[in-house]
Amino acid sequence: MSADDDRRLARVALTWLAEPGTRVVHQLVDRLGPVATLDLLLDGGSPDSRVRTAVAARSVAGDARTVAAEALDRADRLGARLVTPDDEEWPARVACLSTLRLPDVSRRVDGETAPPLCFWVRGAWPLGEALDRSVAVVGARAATGYGLHVATELGYGLAERDWTVVSGGAFGIDAAAHRGALNSGGLTVAVLACGVDRPYPMGNTALFDRIADTGLLVSEWPPGAEPLRPRFLIRNRVIAGATLGTVVVEASARSGATQTARRAIYTNRVAMVVPGPVTSAMSVGAHELLREYPDKARLVTGVAHVLEEVGRIGADLAPVARGPQRPTDALDDEARSLLEALPRRGALGVDRLAARAGVDVRIALRKLSLLEELSMVVRRDDGYALAPQPCVKKGEGRT
Amino acid sequence: MSADDDRRLARVALTWLAEPGTRVVHQLVDRLGPVATLDLLLDGGSPDSRVRTAVAARSVAGDARTVAAEALDRADRLGARLVTPDDEEWPARVACLSTLRLPDVSRRVDGETAPPLCFWVRGAWPLGEALDRSVAVVGARAATGYGLHVATELGYGLAERDWTVVSGGAFGIDAAAHRGALNSGGLTVAVLACGVDRPYPMGNTALFDRIADTGLLVSEWPPGAEPLRPRFLIRNRVIAGATLGTVVVEASARSGATQTARRAIYTNRVAMVVPGPVTSAMSVGAHELLREYPDKARLVTGVAHVLEEVGRIGADLAPVARGPQRPTDALDDEARSLLEALPRRGALGVDRLAARAGVDVRIALRKLSLLEELSMVVRRDDGYALAPQPCVKKGEGRT
Repeated sequence: MSADDDRRLARVALTWLAEPGTRVVHQLVDRLGPVATLDLLLDGGSPDSRVRTAVAARSVAGDARTVAAEALDRADRLGARLVTPDDEEWPARVACLSTLRLPDVSRRVDGETAPPLCFWVRGAWPLGEALDRSVAVVGARAATGYGLHVATELGYGLAERDWTVVSGGAFGIDAAAHRGALNSGGLTVAVLACGVDRPYPMGNTALFDRIADTGLLVSEWPPGAEPLRPRFLIRNRVIAGATLGTVVVEASARSGATQTARRAIYTNRVAMVVPGPVTSAMSVGAHELLREYPDKARLVTGVAHVLEEVGRIGADLAPVARGPQRPTDALDDEARSLLEALPRRGALGVDRLAARAGVDVRIALRKLSLLEELSMVVRRDDGYALAPQPCVKKGEGRT
Repeated sequence: MSADDDRRLARVALTWLAEPGTRVVHQLVDRLGPVATLDLLLDGGSPDSRVRTAVAARSVAGDARTVAAEALDRADRLGARLVTPDDEEWPARVACLSTLRLPDVSRRVDGETAPPLCFWVRGAWPLGEALDRSVAVVGARAATGYGLHVATELGYGLAERDWTVVSGGAFGIDAAAHRGALNSGGLTVAVLACGVDRPYPMGNTALFDRIADTGLLVSEWPPGAEPLRPRFLIRNRVIAGATLGTVVVEASARSGATQTARRAIYTNRVAMVVPGPVTSAMSVGAHELLREYPDKARLVTGVAHVLEEVGRIGADLAPVARGPQRPTDALDDEARSLLEALPRRGALGVDRLAARAGVDVRIALRKLSLLEELSMVVRRDDGYALAPQPCVKKGEGRT
């Protein structure tokens, strides 16, 4: 077995031993690599007692490496593949999840928050490319006719304009968004909280088959994994973090969709909310979001507004993907001002940086996260700094 | 005729010669008083050529003082009265209209912007007292069943909690808000753009009679005045400025209701917006407001949210009306911080003042406008300053 295979196997084994998103596991992998981390965990050496307990419990059920090898075999048989950070198609944007704890975030987001260790994927599109220009559309399962109509229109309109529509494959709003995208002949990605071999809910099987044919089914959990309740919240961080923005269409109070939107906000993505009648229980969560984050959750009433929000970022990114003469040519004024405001040496906190660049702090955070993705700046403990090399050219986007 | 009667007659004559809200007239009255201003205008001495033309045109139709005397007679016969700044019941809050041009206001608000010179009133309540704890509820004439339902509920709920419901007496949302208030046995005020003897629209005559019986019909125009189109926009500034906040329930794009909400924002009132289905043309204007002023227009879904917004201000004001031991006892922390941050001598701009007090600029603007109303601070060309006397005690509020 090659060293590369070893690493892949270790990542799968780690996901089986501890739930995806477990921060301490991610930190260990970051420091030691997946193979050494797996060895450490199997030796009972995790610094976190909950992880030690979980690993011990799982290890009774089988040998982690054997289970991982079986999962890879099973995936192979059903035409699914494993995607890890070593692969070309790894979606770089999910790395942002490691920086979830922003200075202005005080409110807790439920569930674990570390970036994924790997993805299982069904479908032909390279994962990273599919997610490059993507928007999440999420919402209530018990959606009303109004919500289903709006979600379908959004899915259709976004996909028609070459945006990938990402959702969770649930009944209601999720399914409507996927269907809208499929009906326009566009690309849609369902991010699941269970194995890609048994997408949940069963009632959406025909829909999942259509998605797998032309889009992607994606999961952090290995084939065979069950859709346990806590997994949905863990899954939501990927929907929020892998896309440029999240649109909530209908959400009851304290629903999973509003949690996804909060995660989007905390990872400096665009959170968008479709309002509805104040007499509808299915819009209570949506209105709560708009009231809670008046300056961060944007009210949108249709595709045009969504494009206005994510299009700004998309426009920033798109030229880079096409490879401009100078990397900064592709940036808008604000991003360029921020770049110019950075000191030649050392770092600067976002507040001072924003003031220096004459850019609103909220916009600065967004633009800096973009510049970070473009490898133009790096985030350090003491603030933002210029990246060692000015720019790493990204792979070609789909055309 | 007493000097007081002279002044009253002059104010009426001025309103007849030039439309209410005309800034130059208000400035002259401020400087010279109403009698000298009237003489100046009748002599063709207005510094504004439009006003000179209007005065000349009107003077052909009759002698201004005679017309004014007739209007006062006519009002007397129909049980209406004239209220001027010399009267106890003058609503002090409308004075804020003279400070409409705030530093952060760039977008133009249509129509004239000066405070009223006088009000014609039908109904038993003292005008100032009726408007003391008041909220405006305005919206589309071609309202949907949804909007009518929401406006009626708001009118009912606010009036039930002793808030005066102010609106414009139009078909649709306005009428629903008035009706809701009447049905709860509460107080409602219709601010008209025509004479109080012939409230417009005729179709709402029964409603206007009910309002005059238990609430107030109010207008800046003398009895007999017709509801000319531009007058509605001029009237709107009173609805926005005389209340603590304005709620928009359904508004099509660029409707009068959104203009009223904008005026509320520009006079540091609370602007509130009820969202609706994005598929409804009658909510387009409402959603536009929320998108245009994400940090100033508050999304509200019912009475509780409205009270949360205006109640804060109401609570600030209420103890002062009851006469606390020390005037600052009645203030909340932010208002007190701002007061303490003011220099003993000289003025400070709102930005520096807010920074010094550690209060958000937007909140600072609101609190300062409140402090101004309480005669604790004065607004000057170079910023805010402590008022010469610490506090002028307000009259007792209704109990």
